[in-house]
Amino acid sequence: MKERAGIQSVEVGFALLQVLGQARGPLMLRDLAAAAGMSAAKAHRYLVSFQRLALVVQDAASTRYDLGPAALRLGLASLSRLDAVKLARERMPQLTAQIDHTLALAVWGNHGPTIVHWEESANAVTVNLRLGDVMPLLASATGRCFAAWAPRDAIAPLLEAELARARRQGLRDMPATMSEVEASLAEVRARGIARVVEVLLPGVTGFCAPVFDADGHLALGMVAMGPAGTFDADWDGAVATPLRAAAVRLSSDLGWSG
Amino acid sequence: MKERAGIQSVEVGFALLQVLGQARGPLMLRDLAAAAGMSAAKAHRYLVSFQRLALVVQDAASTRYDLGPAALRLGLASLSRLDAVKLARERMPQLTAQIDHTLALAVWGNHGPTIVHWEESANAVTVNLRLGDVMPLLASATGRCFAAWAPRDAIAPLLEAELARARRQGLRDMPATMSEVEASLAEVRARGIARVVEVLLPGVTGFCAPVFDADGHLALGMVAMGPAGTFDADWDGAVATPLRAAAVRLSSDLGWSG
Repeated sequence: MKERAGIQSVEVGFALLQVLGQARGPLMLRDLAAAAGMSAAKAHRYLVSFQRLALVVQDAASTRYDLGPAALRLGLASLSRLDAVKLARERMPQLTAQIDHTLALAVWGNHGPTIVHWEESANAVTVNLRLGDVMPLLASATGRCFAAWAPRDAIAPLLEAELARARRQGLRDMPATMSEVEASLAEVRARGIARVVEVLLPGVTGFCAPVFDADGHLALGMVAMGPAGTFDADWDGAVATPLRAAAVRLSSDLGWSG
Repeated sequence: MKERAGIQSVEVGFALLQVLGQARGPLMLRDLAAAAGMSAAKAHRYLVSFQRLALVVQDAASTRYDLGPAALRLGLASLSRLDAVKLARERMPQLTAQIDHTLALAVWGNHGPTIVHWEESANAVTVNLRLGDVMPLLASATGRCFAAWAPRDAIAPLLEAELARARRQGLRDMPATMSEVEASLAEVRARGIARVVEVLLPGVTGFCAPVFDADGHLALGMVAMGPAGTFDADWDGAVATPLRAAAVRLSSDLGWSG
């Protein structure tokens, strides 16, 4: 593949901004240059320009360099346009091609995790999913994903109510007590993904992977579901692995650094 | 004065990032290049490099350019070092325990006050708030707080535009003329805190208290919001008093002596 022509100095100079962005605080010229893999003289020329642009500031007393107000403005502009759902939707077709089962996106609504988008793969068995469906907190992978990362106090009443309902209905593979709920949610956090096998719908297995924003809030859940026969229910299998990876990548693009 | 040597291409190319940062959304190559004062061919070479660095992304369908995840990461790194934001975040848990409603922090971005952090109290009714949300200048407490203490010239066009929009939409509790705007902002300054009651969101009341730096600039707004039923909307009530006190204390810790 022929590489498209760019502006080399722009790419070289960016290493300095990247080092500053990853540093704990302001840096001396020699440390900054060394971390960016260039000579101090060369780094200095770039820093002169970055300072003119207010991308970098130099503290007069310590002579250390740090990111400047123009870097903040770029970031705020970019933050204000981020739309987790929109970005996730754009990536769904590619993910569907990879996973080849029904995929969905859920966000937290007033009554619990709510399906805001879904698409079927060409070969998917139809799963009865509707836009606006509110998923149960324990009986669905989506619910367990939100329950695992939501502030506990906020969802405790919902959990109690669902536990009581599940006992009456005799659903299988459901936690029976609050301590079983806690154990189940701890497993979700440890695995980095939630799963239910034939709990809500007979014959249907589902996964839900969490997408976080820069603040560490659960922005949305990426869901995959399919029939027990063809759907890989392994925690690290053909569905869970690409779904988890897509969620981690989206989180990182939203500025999450967990 | 002799100008210090920099790297010219870095300074030239930055104009493209600046245009993207100030735009309302993704731009076509020709518009982006024109706004940055360069030819499309030249702009394209820079954009190739910016895309390699993830500072810019191009939408495959629309072919428009926008800021990318690396711009966001630079901004978040720079945000995390702002003393006002850092200190405010550290104090949020204690303030949430006191106020027991959703709290948020906003700073001034290119298009207005931008939410850069938020947390819910355990008992909070979910308020649909997203990181990066840009709050309107008149229809939100956050906006009125920034409008009250921002340099008037800087925000006059934004105020005019919002006034016209509010008239069309018939929002309640909104100033109808510029002199009503002035009176409303004068009250905010006199009270030391901004408030809106069910203007932007039905049933939701909000306060925003200003935090000033040593220079007397508005560094950030501390926001509290909650449902009309349980949220004390009194100017000197159970929400406004501790919120105002926290903002004054933080201002003083930043060196403000107003």
